[in-house]
Amino acid sequence: MKTMKAAVFVKAGKIALQEKPIPKVGPGEALIKVTTTTICGTDVHILKGEYPVAPGRIIGHEPVGIIHELGVGVTGYQIGQRVIVGAITPCGQCYSCLDSHLSQCGGQAIGGWRFGNTIDGCQAEYVLVPFAMANLTPVPDGLSDEQVLMCPDIMSTGFSGAESGQIKIGDTVVIFAQGPIGLCATAGAKLKGATKIIVVDNITKRLEVSKQLGADIVIDYSKTDPIEEIMKHTDGKGVDVAIEALGTQKTFESCLRALKPGGILSSLGVYSGKLSLPVDAFAAGLGDHKIVTTLCPGGKERMRRLISVIRSGRVNLTNLVTHRFSLDQIEDAYELFSNQRDGVIKVAITP
Amino acid sequence: MKTMKAAVFVKAGKIALQEKPIPKVGPGEALIKVTTTTICGTDVHILKGEYPVAPGRIIGHEPVGIIHELGVGVTGYQIGQRVIVGAITPCGQCYSCLDSHLSQCGGQAIGGWRFGNTIDGCQAEYVLVPFAMANLTPVPDGLSDEQVLMCPDIMSTGFSGAESGQIKIGDTVVIFAQGPIGLCATAGAKLKGATKIIVVDNITKRLEVSKQLGADIVIDYSKTDPIEEIMKHTDGKGVDVAIEALGTQKTFESCLRALKPGGILSSLGVYSGKLSLPVDAFAAGLGDHKIVTTLCPGGKERMRRLISVIRSGRVNLTNLVTHRFSLDQIEDAYELFSNQRDGVIKVAITP
Amino acid sequence: MKTMKAAVFVKAGKIALQEKPIPKVGPGEALIKVTTTTICGTDVHILKGEYPVAPGRIIGHEPVGIIHELGVGVTGYQIGQRVIVGAITPCGQCYSCLDSHLSQCGGQAIGGWRFGNTIDGCQAEYVLVPFAMANLTPVPDGLSDEQVLMCPDIMSTGFSGAESGQIKIGDTVVIFAQGPIGLCATAGAKLKGATKIIVVDNITKRLEVSKQLGADIVIDYSKTDPIEEIMKHTDGKGVDVAIEALGTQKTFESCLRALKPGGILSSLGVYSGKLSLPVDAFAAGLGDHKIVTTLCPGGKERMRRLISVIRSGRVNLTNLVTHRFSLDQIEDAYELFSNQRDGVIKVAITP
Amino acid sequence: MKTMKAAVFVKAGKIALQEKPIPKVGPGEALIKVTTTTICGTDVHILKGEYPVAPGRIIGHEPVGIIHELGVGVTGYQIGQRVIVGAITPCGQCYSCLDSHLSQCGGQAIGGWRFGNTIDGCQAEYVLVPFAMANLTPVPDGLSDEQVLMCPDIMSTGFSGAESGQIKIGDTVVIFAQGPIGLCATAGAKLKGATKIIVVDNITKRLEVSKQLGADIVIDYSKTDPIEEIMKHTDGKGVDVAIEALGTQKTFESCLRALKPGGILSSLGVYSGKLSLPVDAFAAGLGDHKIVTTLCPGGKERMRRLISVIRSGRVNLTNLVTHRFSLDQIEDAYELFSNQRDGVIKVAITP
Repeated sequence: MKTMKAAVFVKAGKIALQEKPIPKVGPGEALIKVTTTTICGTDVHILKGEYPVAPGRIIGHEPVGIIHELGVGVTGYQIGQRVIVGAITPCGQCYSCLDSHLSQCGGQAIGGWRFGNTIDGCQAEYVLVPFAMANLTPVPDGLSDEQVLMCPDIMSTGFSGAESGQIKIGDTVVIFAQGPIGLCATAGAKLKGATKIIVVDNITKRLEVSKQLGADIVIDYSKTDPIEEIMKHTDGKGVDVAIEALGTQKTFESCLRALKPGGILSSLGVYSGKLSLPVDAFAAGLGDHKIVTTLCPGGKERMRRLISVIRSGRVNLTNLVTHRFSLDQIEDAYELFSNQRDGVIKVAITP
Repeated sequence: MKTMKAAVFVKAGKIALQEKPIPKVGPGEALIKVTTTTICGTDVHILKGEYPVAPGRIIGHEPVGIIHELGVGVTGYQIGQRVIVGAITPCGQCYSCLDSHLSQCGGQAIGGWRFGNTIDGCQAEYVLVPFAMANLTPVPDGLSDEQVLMCPDIMSTGFSGAESGQIKIGDTVVIFAQGPIGLCATAGAKLKGATKIIVVDNITKRLEVSKQLGADIVIDYSKTDPIEEIMKHTDGKGVDVAIEALGTQKTFESCLRALKPGGILSSLGVYSGKLSLPVDAFAAGLGDHKIVTTLCPGGKERMRRLISVIRSGRVNLTNLVTHRFSLDQIEDAYELFSNQRDGVIKVAITP
Repeated sequence: MKTMKAAVFVKAGKIALQEKPIPKVGPGEALIKVTTTTICGTDVHILKGEYPVAPGRIIGHEPVGIIHELGVGVTGYQIGQRVIVGAITPCGQCYSCLDSHLSQCGGQAIGGWRFGNTIDGCQAEYVLVPFAMANLTPVPDGLSDEQVLMCPDIMSTGFSGAESGQIKIGDTVVIFAQGPIGLCATAGAKLKGATKIIVVDNITKRLEVSKQLGADIVIDYSKTDPIEEIMKHTDGKGVDVAIEALGTQKTFESCLRALKPGGILSSLGVYSGKLSLPVDAFAAGLGDHKIVTTLCPGGKERMRRLISVIRSGRVNLTNLVTHRFSLDQIEDAYELFSNQRDGVIKVAITP
Repeated sequence: MKTMKAAVFVKAGKIALQEKPIPKVGPGEALIKVTTTTICGTDVHILKGEYPVAPGRIIGHEPVGIIHELGVGVTGYQIGQRVIVGAITPCGQCYSCLDSHLSQCGGQAIGGWRFGNTIDGCQAEYVLVPFAMANLTPVPDGLSDEQVLMCPDIMSTGFSGAESGQIKIGDTVVIFAQGPIGLCATAGAKLKGATKIIVVDNITKRLEVSKQLGADIVIDYSKTDPIEEIMKHTDGKGVDVAIEALGTQKTFESCLRALKPGGILSSLGVYSGKLSLPVDAFAAGLGDHKIVTTLCPGGKERMRRLISVIRSGRVNLTNLVTHRFSLDQIEDAYELFSNQRDGVIKVAITP
C-alpha cells in the first residue's frame, strides 16, 4: 500500500504530519496530487478542539493540484490537468443541491463541507475529491497556484458576504474584522458596486491591505468607537449592509448597531458560546432588518467564476499570502498562523 | 372649536375616552370620519406602558371611514368616499420610501408608523391622514366595513410574514402563535402556495380558526413538544419557512429550531427584554439561515391589493371579529381585549 | 436480448409501436418499468415533423413507474419503488445546473430535455433514466399513478409560467390558451396568490375546467375581443402578469397588449415561423416590460414539490385525464389527441 | 410677466431658442435656475419628429441648477441650494410608484418621463420641478456641474441596463453600441462585477473610451462579425447578459444571438418601426431567456446613489463631455450633436 504525508488531527491541541495511505478512487471520484494548499481559521478552531472532527482525520479544505486519477463516470477531464476544488463539495443531485442550497448538501446543516471535516482533506500529498463532476475546476494556464489559492474558501466566503448582503450600486457597507475573510468581503463589496466601504479592525497592516482591496474608510477600533464613526460617515443614518467577518458577540452586535432600518446584516463568522440580539438595535423586531448567514459557496461553477475574477485582474489577492512553507513544515506553519505572528495573513503550503 | 370623542393614552394603565378638537386639514392631508376601527395588540402594549407614546395621544391605527375633508393638493378623491388607510402611512417621497423601505419612512426605524404613535390615531370620530395621496384607499361597494377592517394592520402584517419568508409552491411552513397576526400569516402562507402548513398555539378556538384559514396540522404546545412534532411531520428535515407571530424568546427560538438548513425565519413579533440566538440551532452561523423582520406594509397600493384578496373571496377574515362595541364603550373593549376574555380575537369599534 | 414494446418516431407523420431492446443500465442510471405515461403537445409536434428527432427514437417524456434496476452509484432507492421522473432530466453537476439553469443542462439550449428527444423516452414498457440520483422521485402511497401523471411536464411547465411571472398576492393575471399547460398555469396562478385570474380560449369545455382550477373570468375569444375585455376588467390598466400558453404570434402579441407598464409576459409556448414584437404595445422598449420564457423545470426536488401540491389537495388535476388507452393502442391515442377529438385534454397510457 | 430663454420644439425639424414666461410655482413644486444641462439622443428623436411632443414644448430633461423658489409643502431644502433632478420625475404616491414602478408613474407607459415631454423641460434658464420632495437631489460641494451632469439620464439609464440584467460577479457581458448610454452601461457592468465585458461599435473613439470605462474586449462590427467574435471569447457558450443600447432590429437581434441559454437581454434602446424575435436564437421560446426593458430610473434616491458613485471616484464620466455651448448657441449644439460631428459624445449647455 502506497503512503503519503498528511497533516492529521490527533487530538485537541495537536495536528501532526503522519504517513497515511493514498486513497483509492471510487466511481464519480477523482484523486488530486496537491501542489499548493493553505491553512484556514477553521483549521485553527479544529486544532484547538473548538470544532470537533474525528481523531485521525486529514485536515485542510483548500486544494490546488493536478488530476492524478479519475473514477468511473468522471468525464471531460484529463490526467495531469491542473484544477482547484472548492472547500465545499456539493453532490449537485440531492434535494438541497437541486434547491440551490449547495452548501447544505444532503439537507444536513453544513452538509456540503466535507474536506477535513467529514472526509479526509487536502493538507496532504493527495486528496480524494467526491462528486468530481460537480467539483473539479480547471485552472487556466497563465495563473499561478498562489493566484487561485484563495478561491476554494476565503475568496468564495468573503465575496458571498457581499452577495448575500445584496449590495447595490451606491450602497454604504461596513465590514467588521479584516482577517482573510474580511479582506475578501471588502474586495467583494467593491466588486458589487458599494461606493462607501468602511472597515473595522485593530491591526494596522490589515487595514492597509484593506485599502488596497477597496476600503474607503478604515477604523481602528482600539483608537475610536466604530459605531460613532460609522454614524458620522453616514449622517447618522447607518449603513445599507453590515458584514460580520469574525464570529463574536461584539462584532455581530456592532453590525446590527451600524445598520440602517431596512438594512442587511450579512454574517460570515463562526460563532460559539452565546449569541444575543440586542432588542434596541433590532428595533424590537420592527426595523425590517435582515440577518443572513452564508457558508462558503462551492461547486465548479462558483470556482469558475472566482477564477474569472482573478484572471480579469479586477481583484488581486496574491499579497494575502505572506508566508510559505513546505508540507514537511506544516506544524511550524500552524504554530505561526494560529498565533497570528509576524503579520501573517495567509500561508502557502507546498507538498 | 368643534370637538370629537377619542380614546386617549393618559398614562401607563389608562386609556380614556375624552373630548378632543377635530383636527384641521393642512396641505396634502385628509380628514376621515371614522366608521369602524379596532384595537391591536400593540395598543395593549401602549396601554400597559410597554411601548411609550406621549400622554394625550389619541390611540389606534386601523381606520375604515368616509372622506370628510381634503387638503390642498389632494386630488382624485371625493368627499363622502369610503376609504381605508393602512396602519403605516408612508410619505412615498423620502429616500427610504423611494428605496422601497416604506415602513421605515424618513430613514427612522419604524418611521412609517405614525397613527396612534407619533401623531393622533383613529380610535376617534375623526382622524387626520398625512400624505393622503399615498394612503387613502377606496373601498369598493359591496364590501362591508368589517370585511376590510383587517386590511390596515393584521392582514397586511400577517401576509408579510409569508411574503418576507419568500414562500414557494410546495413549501412546508410553521407559524408559531395563532393570534390575529398569526392567523393572517396562516392565510398568507396558503395564498403563497405552501402545501404543508403547521401551526402552534395552545388556545383551542384559535387552532380551529387556523384550520379554516389554511392550517394542515395544528399543534397544541401545551400537550406536545412542537419541535418534535414538526420534525416528525418533515421527516426530520425541518421546515422551509418559520413565521414568528408573538414576540417572545421561546417562539423565536422554536422557529430557529424548526428550520431546515437554508431556511427562512420570518419574524413579525414585537420583542422586549432580551433576545438570544441559540448557536446550536443557528449552526454556528454556517447554516445559510436567514432571519427577516417585517413591519406591517402600508400605503394605498398595499391596501388595494389586500382589498382585492378580500373581494376575490380567496380569504375570509370576517370571523376574526368576535365582539362589537361602540366608541363610547371603548374602555370596556380594552378591558376585554387586553385580558383576552370570552374567546376574543378582534373587536370592531364603531364611533 | 430481451425486448419491449415502444412508440417510435419513424418519420414525419408516423409514430409506430415497435419491438425495441430493453435498455442496459450503466453507472448512475436506473431502469424504470413504466406503469402510466401520457402524450404531450410536443409529441404531436414531433409526429408532425415540426420538432426534429432522430428516426427510431422512442418518444415520450412523462413517466410514472417502478424501479426495475439501479446502476452503480445509485443509492437510497429500492427495486420495486414507485417513482416519477420529470420530463427534463438535469445532471445537477455541470456549470449550467450548478448555476440553477437545470433545464439548459450542459449549457445547450433545451439541453435538459432528453427523454424522447436526445435519448429514448417513456412511451414504452421500460425507460432508462440518466442521472438517476438527481431525477428519481418517490411517489407516496395513497397517490394513484394518474394523480401524479401531470407532474413530469404539464404541471411543472404550467406552474412555472406563474412562478417566472413572479406573481404576487393581489395580482391580476391573464392566461392565453387553456390547453393542458394553460390550465395548469391557471392553477399555478391561483396557488401563487393572484386574486383576479382571466383566461382566454375558445373551447367551452376547457373554459369550464379553468373555472374549477381558479379562473375568475373566462373569455371566449371567438365571441368577444379579449384585449377589450381585459381592459374593462382592469379599469384600463392592463394585467400584472400575462402568461402565454400556446406558442403563436397572436397569443404572444395579445399578452403584450394586455400587460400594464412594468408587467411581466411569462411565455410557455413553443414558437415556430416568425415572431414579432409590436413596438406600440412594447412602449418602444420603454415600458419596463419583462418577457420571460421557461422550459419545464425538472429534477427530483421539483417533482417532490409538485407531488406535495397534489398530496395537499390544494390542486386536483385528475379530471384533466379524459381518455385512457393501453400502450398497444397508442397509435389510436395519438390519432385522438393530435386531432383534439372528443373533448380530449390529456390521455393516460398504461403499458 | 418675467420671461426667460428656452429651447422650444416648433415642429418636426425645428427646435428654436425662444422667450417664454418663467413658470409660476404651485404646491409641491420647485423652480430651479438651470446652471448646466445637456442634449439627449431622445431630444434628437423629438427634433426629427420621430417622438411626438406638443409644439411649443420646452425640451430637455437633464438639469443641474440652483433652487430659486419652493412651493407650499416643500420642506428640507433651501433657496440657493445646488441640485440635480432626474429625467424621470416620479410622484412617489400613486399605485405604480408605491409598487416600485417609478418610471411608469400613474400607471401610464413612460408616465414618469415628464420633462420636455408632457411638461416643459430644462433647456432653459429655469425649469419647474413637479413633486419636488421626491425629486430635488442636493449636489455635494466639491463636485462640479459637469461631474454630475450625466446622472439625470444617461448614467441612470446605462447603469440600469447592468442592473436589470442582474449581472453577477464573474459574468460575461456584451454591450451593443457605445454611445453615451452604452458607455454608461459598460461602466455599470464593471461596477456590478462583470469580469469579461465585450463591447461592440464601429466608432474608434467610442471604443477607446469604453476601454477606459471597463471594456475588456472591443469589437468593431465594421471589421469583424460580432457574434462570431463573442462566441470565440466565450468558448461558444454565449454571454450571461447582453445589453442593447441603440434601439435597432440589428442590435436587438444580435443581443439575442450572443446570449447563452438562460441569459438575460437587457434592452435600453428606443425602438421604432418593426421589431422581430428570431425564433431560432430564441430557442423557440424554450431557452429560459429573459428580455427586460428599462426606462431611466429617477427620483432623488436614485440620483443620490449615482452622485455617490461619482463622488467615490469609482466611475469618472467627465470625459464624455466633448463640447460646450451657451444656451444662446443651443441650435448650433443640436446641429453638431444630431449629426454626431467632431467626435461628439455629450455636450454641456450653460444658460
